[in-house]
Parts: sequence; structure tokens; C-alpha cells
Amino acid sequence: MFEWLTGATRLYGIVGDPIGQVRSPEIVTTALQARGINAVLLPIHARPDAFDGVMAGLKRIENLDGLILTLPYKARGLEHVDTLGREATAGGVINAMRRGADGRWHGEMFDGLGCLAALAAAGVHPAGKRVLLVGAGGAGAAIALAVADKQPSFLRIAEIDDDRASALVRRISAVTGDLPVDLGPADPRGFDLVINASPMGMADRPESPLLHPVTGSTVVFDVVAKPAVTMLIASALANGAVAIGGAEMIRGQVDLIADFFAQTSFNIEKDL
Amino acid sequence: MFEWLTGATRLYGIVGDPIGQVRSPEIVTTALQARGINAVLLPIHARPDAFDGVMAGLKRIENLDGLILTLPYKARGLEHVDTLGREATAGGVINAMRRGADGRWHGEMFDGLGCLAALAAAGVHPAGKRVLLVGAGGAGAAIALAVADKQPSFLRIAEIDDDRASALVRRISAVTGDLPVDLGPADPRGFDLVINASPMGMADRPESPLLHPVTGSTVVFDVVAKPAVTMLIASALANGAVAIGGAEMIRGQVDLIADFFAQTSFNIEKDL
Repeated sequence: MFEWLTGATRLYGIVGDPIGQVRSPEIVTTALQARGINAVLLPIHARPDAFDGVMAGLKRIENLDGLILTLPYKARGLEHVDTLGREATAGGVINAMRRGADGRWHGEMFDGLGCLAALAAAGVHPAGKRVLLVGAGGAGAAIALAVADKQPSFLRIAEIDDDRASALVRRISAVTGDLPVDLGPADPRGFDLVINASPMGMADRPESPLLHPVTGSTVVFDVVAKPAVTMLIASALANGAVAIGGAEMIRGQVDLIADFFAQTSFNIEKDL
Repeated sequence: MFEWLTGATRLYGIVGDPIGQVRSPEIVTTALQARGINAVLLPIHARPDAFDGVMAGLKRIENLDGLILTLPYKARGLEHVDTLGREATAGGVINAMRRGADGRWHGEMFDGLGCLAALAAAGVHPAGKRVLLVGAGGAGAAIALAVADKQPSFLRIAEIDDDRASALVRRISAVTGDLPVDLGPADPRGFDLVINASPMGMADRPESPLLHPVTGSTVVFDVVAKPAVTMLIASALANGAVAIGGAEMIRGQVDLIADFFAQTSFNIEKDL
């Protein structure tokens, strides 16, 4: 059963607090082995006061090649990489990092691309659609940039922090040029695709992030993975809308992150 | 294939330099899983200048419960534990450490017990035997104490470092009382069991550690695991003696270390 586990097996990890709920160890290990890489991705539980020390130690292990960062470490991970990819530069957060051939650590953020992959798996494509995005934090910024790339007809950002919202709009304009993008309320009326990238819907603030219910012709995507059925998802389904939950965004990232770890792509946008 | 690998899987490791040759990941993981512990033992490659930093980081991982130390880290491991078991106290080196329920790290040395287990597997028991032990370093001291416990009729230590040799004889006398033990040359004539715990026989000093060849009535045990057939082993086999190699000592430790990690036994001899 463990014949594959030798002294030459390469190590990857997912670092978080708590860690018991993560499913990446099984599914990313399977994806790496499917690529012919003898590697294992481990659950690594680091408490906040131990995080920097754990990361420093992990990075000095010669046969450890990459890490996934999950809650609450997507922002703190930034301090442990030397270069950033395009998505990570846009959002200011990373959720994966790998050691490059030059020994430097490269960080990237896959929530946006994972969102697109999950939408595509459900037959939904943002091109030509009117898109409302609620929440411009790390995940929101990454999703906004990924969606903007797909040429929606219009993108509205609803975000309670004005500075953060304006910064994201400027960033999107800089990379997309003529895409109509503005700031506005979290009102889904008139939108084809509504994405919640705010923490609203989690157990400690379960209410919907939207000011009005969605109609049946809307597609709803909710990054919140726990609970699997948020108030937003339940309301969308009740009204006949297509609704996609956060677990799909995680699933949509598995191949992207396995490819990233396998170094089949490497695009540095920013040296830190 | 990786269904067992969840966020709740516990971590163990073997730390060494180099690491590619170790077999503990497969066999100790199998032994832990056989005990009902969902755990994996990983190969961890730490270079000498990174060792202390890697150890500090590993010890702060909440779900990492134990480490095996292999070459060249059996002595340096001592600086990373809080308490020592009996065998580790005797030899001044450890080859395994685990986190106790109180959060403190406990070190122990299993080379001696592993040697006894390997001898027993070959039907050899030191009780009543005249035993010659060559080498009183970390492994030699551990083996000497383990053998002395089994009441041989006589134990001779051959060691080129006089201080080290005398210290070991005093230690053995202290724990065994009336066992006849002395220092002398590495001359196997008249001995029933000859154990090499010196580095002689390794690739860079391949000669036999003995002053004379063994006869067919002698049992030879060589801690050197690489090459599998040392000059001592080859010479013993050529003379019709029973010869047991270092790989057996490693195999003999697997269940002992798995039990140690499973915390089915816990005896602190020394607080550091």
C-alpha cells in the first residue's frame, strides 16, 4: 500500500488553522501522482503564533517543493515568497507557492482561475454577461481579474471598503482597457451572473450578501464552501436559478495547482 | 489509493542527509497504520546548515508527533529534546523522538534494542555468551547496554578512544552490577558473539575491525548496513560463521519505533 513512499518521494503541504477539514491532501496527491510525480501533499497544522517559524523550517527542507496556503494564511503567505504571479499581484494574496529551479519561492493565487473552471464545468461563461461581484478582498480581487479577462459586457463591484473597491477597479481598468466596470450596491437585478466573494454566508454571519433575491435567469456563484448550502445558494435554488458553491471552486483549482507544482507553467509578474 | 490521506492524518518524519536511500517511510508508515494510527512517515532532507532551523519548524507543526534521526544527526538530535530514555542516556545519542502529552519532546535510542531484535530473529541470544563488542560510540554504547541486560557470561569492549571506553564500562557496571566487563583488543578468539559497532567496513574504510578472523562457531553481527556484505561479514560467512548485517538492525527497530511513536511505552530516565 505504501510502496510508492520512498526516500526519494517529494513533499508538498497545505498549511492552515484548523486543518482537519481540508481535502487537498488526497486530491492533490492523486493529481501529482497522475502527472508522474512521486510526491505527497500533507496537512500541516500551524497555529498563528507558530506560522512564520513553521514556514521558515518548511522552506529549508530540501525535498519540499511547494505549499498551499489556506485560511487564515492567504495574506501572510506573501511574506514567504520572492516573486508573484499575475493573479497574486492583482489580489495581494497567494494560496500556493513553489520553489523555483533558482531556489526562489514563487507565489500565485488560484481562486480566480478556480472560479472560472467551476463556472465552465457548469457550462457558464462570463463572456458577454453582465456580472455582479460582491466582495473585493483577496478572493474577490482574484475572481474579478479572472472574470474581466473573459470579456463580460459589464462588471460591477460591490464592496463596503471604498478604498479597496477603487483600487480594484483601477487595477481591472489597467489590465483590460475598455471593459465597463463600476462600483455599486449588491443588487442582483439585471445581472446574468452574481458572484459572492465576501465572507457573508459563513456560519458566523449567515445572511445573504445581496440586497434583493435573484431571479431564475441568474447564475449564482458563492465562494463560501462551508456551509455547502449558504442562504444565498438556498435562495437562488428556491427561485430556480443555477447555483454553484465554493467546494466547486476548490475542485476547479486542483489541476491548476498540480500543474503549477509540476512547473509546467511559470510566469513571474512581480519581484518582491 | 490516497483515501486514507486526510486533513486529520498525523505526521512523522525521518530527518537525514542524504535521505534518498532510507526505507523507513514505507515500513514505519505501514507499521503505524497497522496499529490503527492514520499517520505517514516522510523523508525529510535537511542539510547540516539547515538542520536546526528545520527541526525548530517541524516541532512547531501541531499535527507532527515524532521524528526519526538518521546520519549525520543522531548526536545533534539531543539538542532538540527535553527528556531522554534509558538507552539514549547511556549512549548520549538518540535516533527517535516524540512529542509527549505534555508537549515536551522525548528522545530515545533504538540501535541497541534493534540489535537484540535482529539477533533474536536469527535465534541468537546473548545470555550466557562471551561477547566482544568493537566500538563504543553512540550505537556501540546502546548495543553494549542492551546486551549487558541479557546477562552474557562476559563482555569485552574494544575501543580505540580510552576515555570513551572507560566511561562505557563504568556505565555498564553501574546498571548491571556483577557482570564481568573489561576493555581489550578486537581479538575475536574465544568469543561466542562478536559485534562490530565501529564504522569500519563502510565504503571509505572497508577493512575488517578484527585483529583475527572468526571461526565457524562464532556469531558475527555488523551494524554497518552499507555495503550489505562488509569484509567482516564476507570473512565470517567464508569461515562458516553465522553473520547478520546492519539492515537487520534497522528492520529490528521498526516495531520498537512504531510502538514508541504510538506511546504504548514511556519511560523517562533523564530530564535535560
